[in-house]
Amino acid sequence: MTDDIQMTDDIHMSDDSNMAEDILIHNGLLLTMEKGLPVIENGAVVIRDTKIHGCGDNLDLSRKNILDSNRIDAGGGIIMPGLVNCHTHVPMSLFRGLADDLPLDVWLNEHIFPAEASQINPDSVQKWSRHSAREMLLSGTTTCCDGYFLEAEVARALAESGIRAVAGQGVIDFPAPGVPNPAQNIQAAKEFVKNIRKLSSRITPSIFCHSPYTCSKETLVAAKQAAEDAGILFQIHVAETQNEIQMIDGLDGRSVIAYLDDLKLLNQRTLLVHSVWIDDADIEIIRKRSARVAHCPESNMKLASGIAPVQKLLDAGVVVGLGTDGCASNNDHDLFSEMDMAAKLQKVSCMDPCAMDARRCLAMVTIEGARAIGLDRQIGSIEKGKQADIIIVDVDKPHMVPMYDPFSSLVYSAKSSDVSMVMVDGILRVREGKLI
Amino acid sequence: MTDDIQMTDDIHMSDDSNMAEDILIHNGLLLTMEKGLPVIENGAVVIRDTKIHGCGDNLDLSRKNILDSNRIDAGGGIIMPGLVNCHTHVPMSLFRGLADDLPLDVWLNEHIFPAEASQINPDSVQKWSRHSAREMLLSGTTTCCDGYFLEAEVARALAESGIRAVAGQGVIDFPAPGVPNPAQNIQAAKEFVKNIRKLSSRITPSIFCHSPYTCSKETLVAAKQAAEDAGILFQIHVAETQNEIQMIDGLDGRSVIAYLDDLKLLNQRTLLVHSVWIDDADIEIIRKRSARVAHCPESNMKLASGIAPVQKLLDAGVVVGLGTDGCASNNDHDLFSEMDMAAKLQKVSCMDPCAMDARRCLAMVTIEGARAIGLDRQIGSIEKGKQADIIIVDVDKPHMVPMYDPFSSLVYSAKSSDVSMVMVDGILRVREGKLI
Repeated sequence: MTDDIQMTDDIHMSDDSNMAEDILIHNGLLLTMEKGLPVIENGAVVIRDTKIHGCGDNLDLSRKNILDSNRIDAGGGIIMPGLVNCHTHVPMSLFRGLADDLPLDVWLNEHIFPAEASQINPDSVQKWSRHSAREMLLSGTTTCCDGYFLEAEVARALAESGIRAVAGQGVIDFPAPGVPNPAQNIQAAKEFVKNIRKLSSRITPSIFCHSPYTCSKETLVAAKQAAEDAGILFQIHVAETQNEIQMIDGLDGRSVIAYLDDLKLLNQRTLLVHSVWIDDADIEIIRKRSARVAHCPESNMKLASGIAPVQKLLDAGVVVGLGTDGCASNNDHDLFSEMDMAAKLQKVSCMDPCAMDARRCLAMVTIEGARAIGLDRQIGSIEKGKQADIIIVDVDKPHMVPMYDPFSSLVYSAKSSDVSMVMVDGILRVREGKLI
Repeated sequence: MTDDIQMTDDIHMSDDSNMAEDILIHNGLLLTMEKGLPVIENGAVVIRDTKIHGCGDNLDLSRKNILDSNRIDAGGGIIMPGLVNCHTHVPMSLFRGLADDLPLDVWLNEHIFPAEASQINPDSVQKWSRHSAREMLLSGTTTCCDGYFLEAEVARALAESGIRAVAGQGVIDFPAPGVPNPAQNIQAAKEFVKNIRKLSSRITPSIFCHSPYTCSKETLVAAKQAAEDAGILFQIHVAETQNEIQMIDGLDGRSVIAYLDDLKLLNQRTLLVHSVWIDDADIEIIRKRSARVAHCPESNMKLASGIAPVQKLLDAGVVVGLGTDGCASNNDHDLFSEMDMAAKLQKVSCMDPCAMDARRCLAMVTIEGARAIGLDRQIGSIEKGKQADIIIVDVDKPHMVPMYDPFSSLVYSAKSSDVSMVMVDGILRVREGKLI
């Protein structure tokens, strides 16, 4: 396995003048999530400023210059990349558990939409975005890919919280919080992108069209064009429910995926959220266009939307990340339970215990998740030069013993509360399971 | 709601001589799980010796005689009955994550069976039963219904651990650990029942036939007869996989449930574990006989066994409890994640977001779970005279805020790590999230 480990010469240079200020994470089982998924038994990572400076085996032995106060002892836990949540609406933690176990139309029309109309404003969006950031950081998530209205407020709150995010300004053909005149949605999204770029290196702007049934053909095309002009991710809810197809004008017998493809909306900077009701021909289109998919199994289950054919997407080579969706339909931001449920749901729906194995699943919340949202050059694995988004998972708990395979343990046994340390951009955000 | 609260006179008697030694749990939101599922905003419970002496609203005000050291402040958390796990094989925590993501026959024949043959002995059974007890107690489970071989060792370990259990001695028509000659299985089970009765009031004996495909008609009948003679629970794995029907001799075209019914195996002291591949006629038989069902969704999903028609069973009025199954196929004993997954799986499989609502789900791990295993007179709800098996769930965590409905919060948001206090038989086993 060690052949796969990136180990550069400069990391051993004792004349390295910055060494004293480096941070060392050591004494853990290191899963870098690099190609080949190496497992490094007694692993260590060196962080310089915001980035990973090196990683490998027993590096601590050669890093005597590092200050004691800069050494983080993983205590035999698992050192791994921070988790990537590919689909959130973070202000919606305000609506966590507001109205559960109801028919979809009652839930939306009688509870969620009225609550949004009366309670969503810049202050509440900031407050509950910060709240969600705390929840995510505590549970090992270092990046989320969000989409909502008033997203500039979301972005500001997430930037302050220290989490990394792709922030998608919502576009919809109805009056919405922040953009009462839908004719101005595209212009508002363009302004958002321009402004957010200045906010923080951790926040990447995006444009998020709500869906093909709430956005006209013209809106979809203009929004994607704006995203392409800016070279950023375009997100859209698609094929979430079986009857969505009846709500879209102009399909002319085509599938939703074929319709979006004909509008030239699909490429590697397009994130198709949900993608539950897609068939083999749709999967072939998605593959051909290199579009990305965000799979949100808990939301799809709780709302009884359906089961996405994720194993088929993976078999076709499509990049799939995992998302929790908003807290109104999950009801949390916990990627550990999402992994467990994703794997088990796919196994039972395929009637194949080999479907969605633990390695695949862990990749979907790390390197594949990063790839799905266009951040795989920056994050998603522990490799020299990437941003230092790293977590430690405590394994000294009865439910984590014995540990025959760390991937299995993380997917099928670990809980988000086992996360003891969280670092984003080299900055400690959680220590001993508590927010700093 | 307060009409539903049990509040007896004697609890207010100031001349109650034992009062000073009572324990008071107060300052929490009390879910008693009694009929009507009352929610008591500022609830309290008084415990005398091993039993619940009373519960209701603001009892602390009238209990000035209770020692400060006997007052447990719930800190605004949820006070509720300890959880009941209706199906475990606790020694199998030794095999947690041993061989995941494999075809069923490879998993069983190449990994689990050989591991059991080489590693299961009285010492390992005791060791890993104690380990599982720690895991269960920490996650809020105060009772498990177990079945395994060498179950006397299991029972001893669980008794020492302070957890409550129904301990089922395994019966199978093959040589097994502890009973190398299968002809002696029934006699061994009878001996087990006799001996276990003396062990601890917290341990209730049971007989556990492995399955209709590993036990002959004669074995099944004799085992059920032995259980009936002792007035105890008879457990059996049934209809777990689709092809089980091909492995049973003598069905003569009948379903497995009809076959067991014809053998007179079904009554209210029979726990049908799994019951995945059953049809409407089977459900009618189960209802008519008042047999109980243990639903193990995570195990059924992970092994790709199938999805049990639980909503139909509930609609028919069948008593259904939740179980985690053994750690080789889950891979934990976490009833919080089991509830979340059970509810979401049933919703998506019924394509109905109203299926398996949170109240139903919480009942399945408390009062209905207790009913399923025959202990509903002793445990499963917080009512005067029942054993004091009580937990506190901390709600002061980001993922538990806001809380519009405590049932929703417990099923869809809470994690087992939120359990801060666990009491069994009035004895504290977990305090501040740590084992005592």
